[in-house]
Amino acid sequence: MGKALIKGGRIVTAVDDYVADILVDQGRIEAIAREIPAEDVPTYDATGLMVFPGGIDVHVHMETPMGNDIYTCDTFETGTKSAAFGGTTTIVDFAQQFQGESPKAALDRRLAAAEPQCSIDYGFHVILTDVNSESLAELPDLITQDGVSSFKLYMAYPGVLMVDDADIYRTMRKVGTHGGMVNLHAENGVVIQALIEEALEQGNTSPKYHMLTRPQLMEGEATHRVIRIAELAEVPVYIVHLSAEEALEAVVEARDRGIHAFAETCPHYLFLTNEEYDRPGFDAAKFVMTPPLRDHKCQHALWRGLKFDDLQLVATDHCPFCFNENRFGLLKSKQLGKDDFSKIPNGAPGVEFRLPLLYDGGVHGGRITLNRFVQLTSTAPAKMFGMFPQKGTIAVGSDADLVLFDPNERHTLSADTHHSNVDYSLFEGREVQGKVKQVFLRGELIVDGDEWHGRAGMGQYLKRSASGRIL
Amino acid sequence: MGKALIKGGRIVTAVDDYVADILVDQGRIEAIAREIPAEDVPTYDATGLMVFPGGIDVHVHMETPMGNDIYTCDTFETGTKSAAFGGTTTIVDFAQQFQGESPKAALDRRLAAAEPQCSIDYGFHVILTDVNSESLAELPDLITQDGVSSFKLYMAYPGVLMVDDADIYRTMRKVGTHGGMVNLHAENGVVIQALIEEALEQGNTSPKYHMLTRPQLMEGEATHRVIRIAELAEVPVYIVHLSAEEALEAVVEARDRGIHAFAETCPHYLFLTNEEYDRPGFDAAKFVMTPPLRDHKCQHALWRGLKFDDLQLVATDHCPFCFNENRFGLLKSKQLGKDDFSKIPNGAPGVEFRLPLLYDGGVHGGRITLNRFVQLTSTAPAKMFGMFPQKGTIAVGSDADLVLFDPNERHTLSADTHHSNVDYSLFEGREVQGKVKQVFLRGELIVDGDEWHGRAGMGQYLKRSASGRIL
Amino acid sequence: MGKALIKGGRIVTAVDDYVADILVDQGRIEAIAREIPAEDVPTYDATGLMVFPGGIDVHVHMETPMGNDIYTCDTFETGTKSAAFGGTTTIVDFAQQFQGESPKAALDRRLAAAEPQCSIDYGFHVILTDVNSESLAELPDLITQDGVSSFKLYMAYPGVLMVDDADIYRTMRKVGTHGGMVNLHAENGVVIQALIEEALEQGNTSPKYHMLTRPQLMEGEATHRVIRIAELAEVPVYIVHLSAEEALEAVVEARDRGIHAFAETCPHYLFLTNEEYDRPGFDAAKFVMTPPLRDHKCQHALWRGLKFDDLQLVATDHCPFCFNENRFGLLKSKQLGKDDFSKIPNGAPGVEFRLPLLYDGGVHGGRITLNRFVQLTSTAPAKMFGMFPQKGTIAVGSDADLVLFDPNERHTLSADTHHSNVDYSLFEGREVQGKVKQVFLRGELIVDGDEWHGRAGMGQYLKRSASGRIL
Amino acid sequence: MGKALIKGGRIVTAVDDYVADILVDQGRIEAIAREIPAEDVPTYDATGLMVFPGGIDVHVHMETPMGNDIYTCDTFETGTKSAAFGGTTTIVDFAQQFQGESPKAALDRRLAAAEPQCSIDYGFHVILTDVNSESLAELPDLITQDGVSSFKLYMAYPGVLMVDDADIYRTMRKVGTHGGMVNLHAENGVVIQALIEEALEQGNTSPKYHMLTRPQLMEGEATHRVIRIAELAEVPVYIVHLSAEEALEAVVEARDRGIHAFAETCPHYLFLTNEEYDRPGFDAAKFVMTPPLRDHKCQHALWRGLKFDDLQLVATDHCPFCFNENRFGLLKSKQLGKDDFSKIPNGAPGVEFRLPLLYDGGVHGGRITLNRFVQLTSTAPAKMFGMFPQKGTIAVGSDADLVLFDPNERHTLSADTHHSNVDYSLFEGREVQGKVKQVFLRGELIVDGDEWHGRAGMGQYLKRSASGRIL
Repeated sequence: MGKALIKGGRIVTAVDDYVADILVDQGRIEAIAREIPAEDVPTYDATGLMVFPGGIDVHVHMETPMGNDIYTCDTFETGTKSAAFGGTTTIVDFAQQFQGESPKAALDRRLAAAEPQCSIDYGFHVILTDVNSESLAELPDLITQDGVSSFKLYMAYPGVLMVDDADIYRTMRKVGTHGGMVNLHAENGVVIQALIEEALEQGNTSPKYHMLTRPQLMEGEATHRVIRIAELAEVPVYIVHLSAEEALEAVVEARDRGIHAFAETCPHYLFLTNEEYDRPGFDAAKFVMTPPLRDHKCQHALWRGLKFDDLQLVATDHCPFCFNENRFGLLKSKQLGKDDFSKIPNGAPGVEFRLPLLYDGGVHGGRITLNRFVQLTSTAPAKMFGMFPQKGTIAVGSDADLVLFDPNERHTLSADTHHSNVDYSLFEGREVQGKVKQVFLRGELIVDGDEWHGRAGMGQYLKRSASGRIL
Repeated sequence: MGKALIKGGRIVTAVDDYVADILVDQGRIEAIAREIPAEDVPTYDATGLMVFPGGIDVHVHMETPMGNDIYTCDTFETGTKSAAFGGTTTIVDFAQQFQGESPKAALDRRLAAAEPQCSIDYGFHVILTDVNSESLAELPDLITQDGVSSFKLYMAYPGVLMVDDADIYRTMRKVGTHGGMVNLHAENGVVIQALIEEALEQGNTSPKYHMLTRPQLMEGEATHRVIRIAELAEVPVYIVHLSAEEALEAVVEARDRGIHAFAETCPHYLFLTNEEYDRPGFDAAKFVMTPPLRDHKCQHALWRGLKFDDLQLVATDHCPFCFNENRFGLLKSKQLGKDDFSKIPNGAPGVEFRLPLLYDGGVHGGRITLNRFVQLTSTAPAKMFGMFPQKGTIAVGSDADLVLFDPNERHTLSADTHHSNVDYSLFEGREVQGKVKQVFLRGELIVDGDEWHGRAGMGQYLKRSASGRIL
Repeated sequence: MGKALIKGGRIVTAVDDYVADILVDQGRIEAIAREIPAEDVPTYDATGLMVFPGGIDVHVHMETPMGNDIYTCDTFETGTKSAAFGGTTTIVDFAQQFQGESPKAALDRRLAAAEPQCSIDYGFHVILTDVNSESLAELPDLITQDGVSSFKLYMAYPGVLMVDDADIYRTMRKVGTHGGMVNLHAENGVVIQALIEEALEQGNTSPKYHMLTRPQLMEGEATHRVIRIAELAEVPVYIVHLSAEEALEAVVEARDRGIHAFAETCPHYLFLTNEEYDRPGFDAAKFVMTPPLRDHKCQHALWRGLKFDDLQLVATDHCPFCFNENRFGLLKSKQLGKDDFSKIPNGAPGVEFRLPLLYDGGVHGGRITLNRFVQLTSTAPAKMFGMFPQKGTIAVGSDADLVLFDPNERHTLSADTHHSNVDYSLFEGREVQGKVKQVFLRGELIVDGDEWHGRAGMGQYLKRSASGRIL
Repeated sequence: MGKALIKGGRIVTAVDDYVADILVDQGRIEAIAREIPAEDVPTYDATGLMVFPGGIDVHVHMETPMGNDIYTCDTFETGTKSAAFGGTTTIVDFAQQFQGESPKAALDRRLAAAEPQCSIDYGFHVILTDVNSESLAELPDLITQDGVSSFKLYMAYPGVLMVDDADIYRTMRKVGTHGGMVNLHAENGVVIQALIEEALEQGNTSPKYHMLTRPQLMEGEATHRVIRIAELAEVPVYIVHLSAEEALEAVVEARDRGIHAFAETCPHYLFLTNEEYDRPGFDAAKFVMTPPLRDHKCQHALWRGLKFDDLQLVATDHCPFCFNENRFGLLKSKQLGKDDFSKIPNGAPGVEFRLPLLYDGGVHGGRITLNRFVQLTSTAPAKMFGMFPQKGTIAVGSDADLVLFDPNERHTLSADTHHSNVDYSLFEGREVQGKVKQVFLRGELIVDGDEWHGRAGMGQYLKRSASGRIL
């Protein structure tokens, strides 16, 4: 990791926007100046390009078991490569505690898998499924020594991942005093389970019922509930993959009263609607993720939320399952649910398309400013989850994770050209304006147009500081 | 304006926070780097100090006539010097159209007065009091050629400054399409006038009745009203000196629906309450400004608004009148209203204490983050009123308006030591933590501890680009 | 006024619903019992019919001047006869103060016109257009001696009827302490005036622009504003002809905080939408009333408001102008505005169809209960405007104003068969279920099927007690 | 049950207010008239008295097991006698399904206990604790044949009474289509359990911790949650003993959107606050009921809710436990929790004081109207729970349950003079204005001043029609 010089780019941070040269040394930004002489260092011409801080995706699921031999179809290697091609240089994935397992053991297991494979930097949220006095007792050390300052709990999937409100409260109290934050999958799992049973009893098995049995009201309810619990516990709270207008209203109401409630949304909720479930045949199964796609009114509300900071960041919830078996035979695919929507593996891919979609639909589409785009994709994730200022900005001393982006080039999103293992894309055939041209990880060029210069294992584990302390 | 080097400071912008050296050339920031060799340039050691972008105060009234030979008691010279000592390097004052006068003539009149006197950079909002087809026709040129992209209208002071809702609507429509924005003094002027008459009829003449006749409800009402008019006109809107919880609620409600409503508050609303009006004798007259000081509940709400960006910036509404005659004999003082609160000149000083107060009560007091402090005092005003990126940040290419600030030094605010002409302070005797040590205007040192190096006339007029286009 | 016996009817009040006989004596209800022997009194068989307390319409404009020789086209005689055929036995019309006139003089003028003509009982609200210390001084006597406890002020029609917010405040304060209430036409008149000028300048003259220049936002704004003024004045407030969802939200928000805000809506807002303005040619002019018809979302909101008591009653704002000249040659018609929507006389007929429409669309349509129907059409108006228990219920001691109603008979609303002078109906051809069969005024049969037994002059003036004191 | 005549009383219903005579025959109201000749029937002079329809208390717990040999200390005999002395002629108590028990069996068990004892009319809500397909299958018959149209579910008391959200949803769906309604005890039971454990771990055992571990936030949360579930299930929902402002806000928000959400509050929340828990020693245990007493802000909000119909009725949650052992030795008393607040039997007495308190504090205190008083204590309970028009009004054909009330007589509430078995009163020593003088059950005089004329077993079981269908 020697030096590098990036010349003449339009540097865009969450607040600034100016043209200058950037000198990198030892993987970090050494200097930013109007003119830096090209000495004896590798030099890249960024004239006419925008320079963004590397994207940070805080919600991905690489090589993740989903029960019964079902795994998401990207390994850490393919998943991080796909991310890199999309301008993302840091991911935060999950380490899920199994029943009876220690949270630390879960982390170690995942670290071992990730370390040799990741080509970009990475961290982990720890998912707790077995909240008891022993597992709770471990959490302070995880935060202060292992750099895991965020923990995920599920209010959905009873019998599998769901914990009860008392567990949420106890976890919040425990981690809150040590700089930790709880991330929630907020849906009322037991009512949804009743709705699923109701649907199946009535013979309703098509993918559309995935959506119809996970109503917006029950996402809104759970979001409201857990914010109240956080208010009681006097800690910040973070809602993952917020999709429903009702859930956003719960966040807005809380923030209007001064409660430290935060939320992310995902590109698919911003660019797609539940009309996809009307596709003929089983094709709708491609869009079976949780929460499901929502209506146009929600989409409109989410964009407003992004603009006015009621939603703080955009992550992908990249959770890829192949649609067909043929490509990766060993992995279970969406076809598992052909006769029963409730057996379709839940999740959809997206890690590679976050920046292009958000630039095109957001900035180019006039919905958000360019600075806000950087905030949503890089700065806010870094600050929210304790990676700033190492990550999330372009400033002297920060990691030289840089994305050179051509705002004018148009290209088409497709599974044919993406770098994930998955065999379809939610956005197949969508033409977007703005393209990632070159990506630097700590000063090293890893993506150069269509060429891959990254290496499995070059990514570093990030010990993160406090989460959710941004207000 | 040659070169200068500021070494080792902790550079704080609205988003970043890092230690680096800053090289200035031609009044602008040339380079920011981990280490810049001290060549043959004036060098300042900022080790242990914070470096902020120069403060921007978008609400001040220097040498302003208030009818009947009454003027605010700071000239542009004394006022800008006072501002500079408080870490403010840019002001936006007002050019008030008189009845029958052309708005452009009002601007020229004020420019002529300011140009030889200002020691920091300055701009003007134009106040319209005579809205008709001729004055409206002038506005596009004011915006695009004269750099005045913001216009102020009063919903208060009937018969003097007030315009009606139709005038507001027409002005909004006219300036909106050219990148202009309307700033509102939002109080229901005619109801307040009825309340004042009611009070005086009942023999209630003491300063406290200034507050009692300007109820929060009527600020809330007017704020709500004008936001609805802006919504109809489809333009952004900006509320000046927001003080009442009810008014903030109107802003919040609008933003929650996606309306581009903005508002400033002032330090006195953040640090003082209406208990000041219970002071014995006429001393309460010092606190007669409009809107008046509010209750603790409002104060709490305002701080929440600042934290969650429902209030976008802090300005001072510096509008100084001496309390006694003796210091500046020719000027009328607060004593004018000794027997009738309605005759007390409305306004209070504050331009010098904005940064120290907000740092101490906000950052040191744990109510807002350090980045947010910079956002509120410099970046947001610059972006809101079309001065960014020339002003409002520390980035390559921006004006080298820099404040070196010692976060640990404690000092006491007092009229004895401030640099305004006014003979009292709202914050007399308040000890604060954090002190402005050195101030640079476009790279020139103008304040060095207690010493003044600025010069009348060195300030430049700022032609501003579009206002209110920040979302 | 001797005795009468109504046997076997299903008596419905705002709370009760039972079958019994009613004995009337001296115009009042003497007894209600399971079985009253038919002695030597006129006996009416109500078996199978509902018996309602007579309808009360608190918003009508009979023979009212609208400037320049334009009058509404119903006299007190034709208007009250039309009302009676629709099951309404009491109206409250308006006495408008002209500029320079005394409010009492305005009342006397209207009383003189009404007395010989009215065939049902009547009261007056006094409209103030010239609020000054003299006219204000008269109001207490009007309330306590003349039985006028409600006063109407206009926030619309600048230069004609509009008063300013200070006038509203002063009137509220004056009448509030004597049991009076202010009724408001709540629209932002000056902004609407600006919109009308804007439309005409752009050559937009068709009736649809009446609607487009009176936006929902400006009704919402004015409603919010005046409720805040009432809150300041600490008096109840009543909004007439509420039509916009935004205005309802202002009422709801206030009531949720404990403010005594009340509102009426009108049948045309409940059953028609602004799609009527897309009618070809000048036909849309029939629907030019103020506020204009609104969208489906408003309609839905109004029905919710009626159900949950956020709207307290339904009145017609009967303000008839002929569409063509031919029928009543001397009266000016809608044709006045053929080339300029702003010259179309504002108002529409409706006094005869209130009960049939509200029964059919409300009760039969499942939107409100039968008791609520009675509350909205009779009990609430009586209580709101100081006529209860003389009017508004079926109880021992109350006036025997009774409507015998067949809930099963269907009939068609039409200008061909109605009893108003006006030559069109908003509801032409609408078939409804439920029909007024017989109407009693103080025990006297005045409507018997299609036959008229009423007499001009048999109506009595109602001195009303306090208005708005129902909570 | 022959005839009776009540002469000259001021008859007050939820809407009417007039002076008349009432003739009773066969237990029902036969006639109401200005003057009914006193034939050969027992005649009561009500001159100067108000006549109310008999009070209906829909939330009482007579001789109810609370686990471990703990029973509430009123039998059906003592409890209904106490109710009658307070002007209540109908109660709706509970039949609790035990684990594994059939709901119908629970009802039969309670009917057998009540039948020989009750001196006033009575009904039962069935409490479900074991929601499964079998118990759900029984519910339609309970509604349509057994007259139980309301079912209570607990969101509190995990492991004892609590059911989960899916059970709530399923029960709502099942009973909703048959005219049933679910009543909820809405508190987040598991979080509260965690708080209790937290408190006990910290050695906090005094009665005040009962209140501190049942925070308003968790009542608000559960109320919001269950309303959302009812919205999803498309059925009306009823919240019992609503006490917290946050819970009321959830109801208000729902009603403002047209959701059929209903709630009751109790006298102790209206007249007492959590300051009672600061009483010295163990005295505070008298006030240990669930939810606990709340702050003044809640009290204020509840009164507003009662006035504006956001709260529909007032019930007592009469659930008496003796404070000391000495009076009824066999029963467990509050003393059980002397060393551990969580062991104090939850509940407090109140059935006898509902009308006197609400008249004094509500009507006499100017907070609600006289008609509203009747609505809250009699008419609304009757309509809400399917007992109208047999109960809840004074109209021809209705049961002659009548209360003669002297609005001027003052008396003092005390355990020394009340008729319940319990040995203390929440309102000991409170002087109130307005006293129940005589009470008639279906025309029979059962209370005559201090004399008891009622008889155990004279009360009749009420088969109720649909609940919650009042909008």
